[in-house]
Amino acid sequence: MERILISDTPKFIGQIIKVVGWVNVRRDHGKIIFIDIRDRSGIIQSVVIPDEKETYETAKMLKSEHSVEVEGLVKERPMSAKKEGMETGGVEMEVKNIKIIGKTYEELPIDISKEEMNLNLDTLLNHRVITLRNDKIKSIFKVSSEVVRSYEEFLRKDGFLEIKTPKILNAATEGGANFFKIKYFDREAFLAQSPQFYKQIAAGSFERVFEVGTVFRAEPHFTSRHVNEFTGLDAEMSFIGSFEDVMRELEKTMAYMMKSVAKNCSKDIEKYEIEAPKIKNVFPRIKLTQALEILKKEYGKEIEGIDIDPEGERLISEWVKKKYKSDFVFLTHYPTSLRPFYTMRSADPQFTESFDLLFRGIEIASGGQRIHDYEQLVKSIKSRGLNPEDFKDYTDNFKYGMPPHGGWGLGLERIVQKILGLPSIKEAILFPRDVKRLTP
Amino acid sequence: MERILISDTPKFIGQIIKVVGWVNVRRDHGKIIFIDIRDRSGIIQSVVIPDEKETYETAKMLKSEHSVEVEGLVKERPMSAKKEGMETGGVEMEVKNIKIIGKTYEELPIDISKEEMNLNLDTLLNHRVITLRNDKIKSIFKVSSEVVRSYEEFLRKDGFLEIKTPKILNAATEGGANFFKIKYFDREAFLAQSPQFYKQIAAGSFERVFEVGTVFRAEPHFTSRHVNEFTGLDAEMSFIGSFEDVMRELEKTMAYMMKSVAKNCSKDIEKYEIEAPKIKNVFPRIKLTQALEILKKEYGKEIEGIDIDPEGERLISEWVKKKYKSDFVFLTHYPTSLRPFYTMRSADPQFTESFDLLFRGIEIASGGQRIHDYEQLVKSIKSRGLNPEDFKDYTDNFKYGMPPHGGWGLGLERIVQKILGLPSIKEAILFPRDVKRLTP
Repeated sequence: MERILISDTPKFIGQIIKVVGWVNVRRDHGKIIFIDIRDRSGIIQSVVIPDEKETYETAKMLKSEHSVEVEGLVKERPMSAKKEGMETGGVEMEVKNIKIIGKTYEELPIDISKEEMNLNLDTLLNHRVITLRNDKIKSIFKVSSEVVRSYEEFLRKDGFLEIKTPKILNAATEGGANFFKIKYFDREAFLAQSPQFYKQIAAGSFERVFEVGTVFRAEPHFTSRHVNEFTGLDAEMSFIGSFEDVMRELEKTMAYMMKSVAKNCSKDIEKYEIEAPKIKNVFPRIKLTQALEILKKEYGKEIEGIDIDPEGERLISEWVKKKYKSDFVFLTHYPTSLRPFYTMRSADPQFTESFDLLFRGIEIASGGQRIHDYEQLVKSIKSRGLNPEDFKDYTDNFKYGMPPHGGWGLGLERIVQKILGLPSIKEAILFPRDVKRLTP
Repeated sequence: MERILISDTPKFIGQIIKVVGWVNVRRDHGKIIFIDIRDRSGIIQSVVIPDEKETYETAKMLKSEHSVEVEGLVKERPMSAKKEGMETGGVEMEVKNIKIIGKTYEELPIDISKEEMNLNLDTLLNHRVITLRNDKIKSIFKVSSEVVRSYEEFLRKDGFLEIKTPKILNAATEGGANFFKIKYFDREAFLAQSPQFYKQIAAGSFERVFEVGTVFRAEPHFTSRHVNEFTGLDAEMSFIGSFEDVMRELEKTMAYMMKSVAKNCSKDIEKYEIEAPKIKNVFPRIKLTQALEILKKEYGKEIEGIDIDPEGERLISEWVKKKYKSDFVFLTHYPTSLRPFYTMRSADPQFTESFDLLFRGIEIASGGQRIHDYEQLVKSIKSRGLNPEDFKDYTDNFKYGMPPHGGWGLGLERIVQKILGLPSIKEAILFPRDVKRLTP
């Protein structure tokens, strides 16, 4: 007998069918045993009566999360027993036969059949093998998959080619201490912090490229917004007029992604009781220096130095939302000293043609225009007191007619976190990695 | 003026438009200068006449690969000057204005405007920044992108969820010496050789999952089919009846990918003058032991030991192609000693419910059914003389009703290599990594 997906069972009223799945809950009501069977599509209530002797004996032994194959008759429930708002709420299955195909060996440490498990982060992650079976948790990863799918779809339509760049580098080219070191045969190598340099070379060939790939950051942070390994949604585009073109492309991409998620994951999002992101066709753009002034004037917040801090990002997002009804805002023109040497400077060379994109209070993307002229690039390296010889492998690529170009790096998990309002980015990752956590 | 893509120029005959791109070739014919301008969509011949004085002076200075912005009048070419088989072969552009927007600082070491560059592998890879601009080389990565796109599309339609699993592991769980070591803060960690264990856990939750991600192999090989970093196209599915279900899913996926590539990359494939892959709805399946017998009988090839070698894979593919007109073949039932401890054994426990998929002579995928029962898994570990305690992090996940499941790992670059008939897998990777090569 062919397996039927549980969400399709209402089409089979009056027929004997087979479903497979996990025992979500078993309830013994007097002589009758109720079993909720769960597969990837939904849950169906199944009823075992003592008359079906052998089946009844099996049913009595069933534990939560046993994998089972169940044959039975699909029946319409009486009016009074129908469950509203549940696809299979109008049917139940009268069980004829049960076969256990995957055994549970231990009592579950957590009841995952509840809508809200109310676990602390460590418990949630330590028991990932079962917490990932909870309905509400599963929705996080359906949203995540849709974010990736819609990102790729939009950029492909817009002439971007998908590329895959190496994650093992011979040098920590961007500088900084945030690289993991690898033993690479008889030498030392580094894990890529971003596909930056490779996507630039590729943009010099294919014009428009994007990558979905793993990004490694050796930052010893303990916050709700940092992890040491995440999925980067990168893009780079040639023949731009200015970094405004990059922001324009990114905001179109984000708008498309948000619409796709709202449309294709509506049920998943509902579970999180959070309002849909407010999106404008054109996201507000605020210069970083102006943002700092607004923070001072509106919130009395004095920032030490020239950069905005996480609290500042949260407050400026709040202000933008009130003023412009937008959950997204570009902060632009970061000071030169805050950006890497390859960033294009503005007319006032103290500032750069760069931006961060904030979504609901946190930075989800960083980008801008890059220097494409070889001599200008060498000059920029020198102006920072660095030795151009150390960057030769990189700068040599700019000797052959690199066009004006720019791009962005987006973080998948922060987007998912903020769409669903998750307290920590780690909840948006199947198996997150932080300074202390390398398991499961 | 808005930029027009070069492939669209035939729609603008009689109009002045702007194109941007690279100088593919400049030819001076007496007083007239011909410039072929190339963008991501195609090439257009442009003509500069001395009357346009300033433009003419700029044109004289143009070098190959300069990035330029060109304004001009699109004209239909006279019948005799039309070029067949080229989208823009019927038009040319009378140049009014040229602006250099990205300078070439050095003579190109290689003429990339030729159809065939005929370079050895090292030269091709050492000069990747410019060889990637060659038309025929670019086609490789268009095919690669389409392989990934169609893989994802098919599996999504078939109910698979895209996942991202961690690449940093706390232990080299699968055993073996092919792991790269990382310094992870104050401890040691490893780079993932495959998403095996994580995709199994995910299949225990979402039933059907796939991943496109980087795979690291510390194998000191120097062959045309090995690299140390590649893109894995993985999948794992629960509630299978046997490993036949996994092969069925994989052959449907491969057939879909081959059709998509043939349809959407026909021009790219044409350049390689190779016949389209021969695909059957059901790929031939041969037991490994039978394959070895065929090799002996048909080719007089004696194999030492119980595994097939690369020459054997080539020959058995040849034999299958002759006999069944198929470029694909499954070799099945590998001996238990050749497969990892988590592989499900066959009725005869000397063999496993496993397969390799060969495509045009090389293994592109490996897969099979996994052991899903906790006690059976522990027994399998012991039977190999290993200590189950060492695998506790892995085996503990099997205590909670894991359903029967299986899956595969496919290698993106080998597929692309064999679709186009490339001599080395490294040609199918933008920036390949091998024992000696970590640049560019």
